Amino acid sequence: MHGVAASGEHNGAVRYVAITAVGPAGDQGLDPDREVREIRVRGALLPGLVNVHCHSPMTLFRGSAENLSLDRWLNDVLWPREAHLTADDVYWGMTLAAAELLCFGVTTTCEAYFFEDAVADAVLDAGSRAVVTPGVLQLPGTGSGDDWWDVRTAQIIDFHARRHGDSGRIEVGFAPHAPYTVPLPVLADIAEAARRLDALFHIHLAETEEECTRFAAEHGDSAPAVLARAGVFDGRVLAAHSIWLSDEDMAVYRRHDVAVAHCPQSNAKLASGVAPLVELLARGIRVGLGTDGPASNNDLDLWEEIRLAAMLARIRQRDATVLPAAAALDLATRGAGLALGRPDLGVLAVGAKADMIAVRLDDPAFVPLLEDAQLIEHLVWSASSRLVTDVWVGGRQVVEAGRCLTVDLDEARRQVEARAHRLMQVGV
Amino acid sequence: MHGVAASGEHNGAVRYVAITAVGPAGDQGLDPDREVREIRVRGALLPGLVNVHCHSPMTLFRGSAENLSLDRWLNDVLWPREAHLTADDVYWGMTLAAAELLCFGVTTTCEAYFFEDAVADAVLDAGSRAVVTPGVLQLPGTGSGDDWWDVRTAQIIDFHARRHGDSGRIEVGFAPHAPYTVPLPVLADIAEAARRLDALFHIHLAETEEECTRFAAEHGDSAPAVLARAGVFDGRVLAAHSIWLSDEDMAVYRRHDVAVAHCPQSNAKLASGVAPLVELLARGIRVGLGTDGPASNNDLDLWEEIRLAAMLARIRQRDATVLPAAAALDLATRGAGLALGRPDLGVLAVGAKADMIAVRLDDPAFVPLLEDAQLIEHLVWSASSRLVTDVWVGGRQVVEAGRCLTVDLDEARRQVEARAHRLMQVGV
Repeated sequence: MHGVAASGEHNGAVRYVAITAVGPAGDQGLDPDREVREIRVRGALLPGLVNVHCHSPMTLFRGSAENLSLDRWLNDVLWPREAHLTADDVYWGMTLAAAELLCFGVTTTCEAYFFEDAVADAVLDAGSRAVVTPGVLQLPGTGSGDDWWDVRTAQIIDFHARRHGDSGRIEVGFAPHAPYTVPLPVLADIAEAARRLDALFHIHLAETEEECTRFAAEHGDSAPAVLARAGVFDGRVLAAHSIWLSDEDMAVYRRHDVAVAHCPQSNAKLASGVAPLVELLARGIRVGLGTDGPASNNDLDLWEEIRLAAMLARIRQRDATVLPAAAALDLATRGAGLALGRPDLGVLAVGAKADMIAVRLDDPAFVPLLEDAQLIEHLVWSASSRLVTDVWVGGRQVVEAGRCLTVDLDEARRQVEARAHRLMQVGV
Repeated sequence: MHGVAASGEHNGAVRYVAITAVGPAGDQGLDPDREVREIRVRGALLPGLVNVHCHSPMTLFRGSAENLSLDRWLNDVLWPREAHLTADDVYWGMTLAAAELLCFGVTTTCEAYFFEDAVADAVLDAGSRAVVTPGVLQLPGTGSGDDWWDVRTAQIIDFHARRHGDSGRIEVGFAPHAPYTVPLPVLADIAEAARRLDALFHIHLAETEEECTRFAAEHGDSAPAVLARAGVFDGRVLAAHSIWLSDEDMAVYRRHDVAVAHCPQSNAKLASGVAPLVELLARGIRVGLGTDGPASNNDLDLWEEIRLAAMLARIRQRDATVLPAAAALDLATRGAGLALGRPDLGVLAVGAKADMIAVRLDDPAFVPLLEDAQLIEHLVWSASSRLVTDVWVGGRQVVEAGRCLTVDLDEARRQVEARAHRLMQVGV
């Protein structure tokens, strides 16, 4: 049972990119006509975890704005400092995060941030995989006027042309921040641009009750209803947070196949609330888990989100039978891939990306193991990221025995430390 | 800043039991007339964590009764199986748990379980420390009648006489299960016995709303009110869970100085609810964190409870400013010691037990570190048990570089695995 093997298909310079066979050791029925490599692990082999909502370069701001509501956290601390970021800051913030993510077994993240080339460069250099959705948001000091939005949208269209599909590991989308920070006509324009490119439209939605109350007062209806009417939901949409949704809002999501990035830890830490996970899943709405950025979580450990999602769902529903372990794990693997519109992520299946993680089983977390099905219970309820030993992305090993092979972690820590100190000096 | 040193006082066969000096390296002002040993660590030196509510030997039942409410979990699965436990089962269940706890940096647990000699033996053999509070509960098949309760109480009084203070690492108390499983006169008798011995009276209280509703219907008042009137709260009382408390109940706790064992993860997983942590602390009620047993949590990682306590408090209060990191960490260290009536636990201070843990700081979790105070934020919000490298109990090193020196982990895993399979065969 514990000897699972997978093989990956060779593809020129990028080796072993896809899984061609999965099964117990010796049973793969490898095709002798293809160049394949067999990976054998001690322990359990799982698909790489998929983190569907993240601002990874915010490692630069980790723990620097604590005990604040979302509103104050953004306006008083984060945005004034982010206005002083450089591309190199973002490269190093993303690099440190990528190492952290890979060590936790997270092989894909959906990133919403600025300096998107630096994000993509860092992801590729770290050997990781990302959906890079450049942020659209007027930070303090970043110009203004209607023209700014068009320029920024054009930048992202150009970025898509240059980097979409880069090295087989970068997908490009769009991330206008939120309905309360980006004007509705701009959202509609960006949605149209994304639709033309079949690109992901990634937005923060219904994160705080105050934001929803204010939006409804100004627009006469909820943000989901208004956005749907404006055509914003006609493409591939991923709505992060989605806490304060009415039944009608959820019906809108379902009708437009809007997917949700559920971020339980960020939402709890910032006291934003608990999203209606069970109701979303019951309606067939696609949901994946996100850590959110390391300034609001403050780590990038998706294992914690899996367990927390199950716990908060049980508290919210007052029912200990909801979100069984397999359903919770799905939110960080197969379900997360589907939330991104990527059935090739988060699964160990023929044709899927060869993104895999090995988990040690020689730990008290897995004792006792009375039946095979209990492995999933243990993975969710007693294991943790600390048991991830080895990680492969596109068939390339990037973590071995818990050590990231692709990032000089000491250098990344030094770079982020120094840059964070500089950004801290910015008058706020 | 990161070079902290402590020294421990020598005490015959049990070496270096208490801390005699704390300070930056070189600053300890060691007393040359005492035999002391200096401990130097790379990273941060913290007090050993204190887990105030646990049923550690239930590693035997880890993950074997999932997705059930507390009521069904106890009656349908756990209690019928526990009736078939042997002392050796409990010894090995506790041994595996002790190794797990020590590796997570938990140096003291308050244990409520049966076969108390086996529990104490395992704790001592593992080099750990515990408040052993033998359980009082009529499991299916364990005799009945009024006489049974008296016999059991006498057993615990005898256990106290034999083992209290054993090796300087065992404290003995009493753990009648709950007001809905132990008759009120029996609770009063046990409380009186505990008071005579100045021993801890440890009980499950107000864990589910259903239990509270039923108790109030039968007794005409809440369990805290009824127990207080019966004199049950006149000694040293630790009330585990304490979720469904009215303002009057909290006033009763305050008046009688009842301490609370807050178990957020168990309470969330079993959908029992969220305890009023902020209200309890605001009233000056002593609160410590507990993992609860590994059949309901399912791990023994107190670090997770620290973070979850802060998150759930923020959700419950809808306020991101409550439970700042230092307050959350206190619940697993100094505050947990005080909840047990043990100011010598959970602190690095002269005279305290030399129970200490070293935490690696060369991890992304601690980047950036803009000011010293941020270390506490990072410990709570981005670090985890995986960064605990070394652990000392009573000055004796029990974990080194993440490896438990005192328990043969392979043997403990084999023993628990085999015994769990046997118990699983019990007809339920």
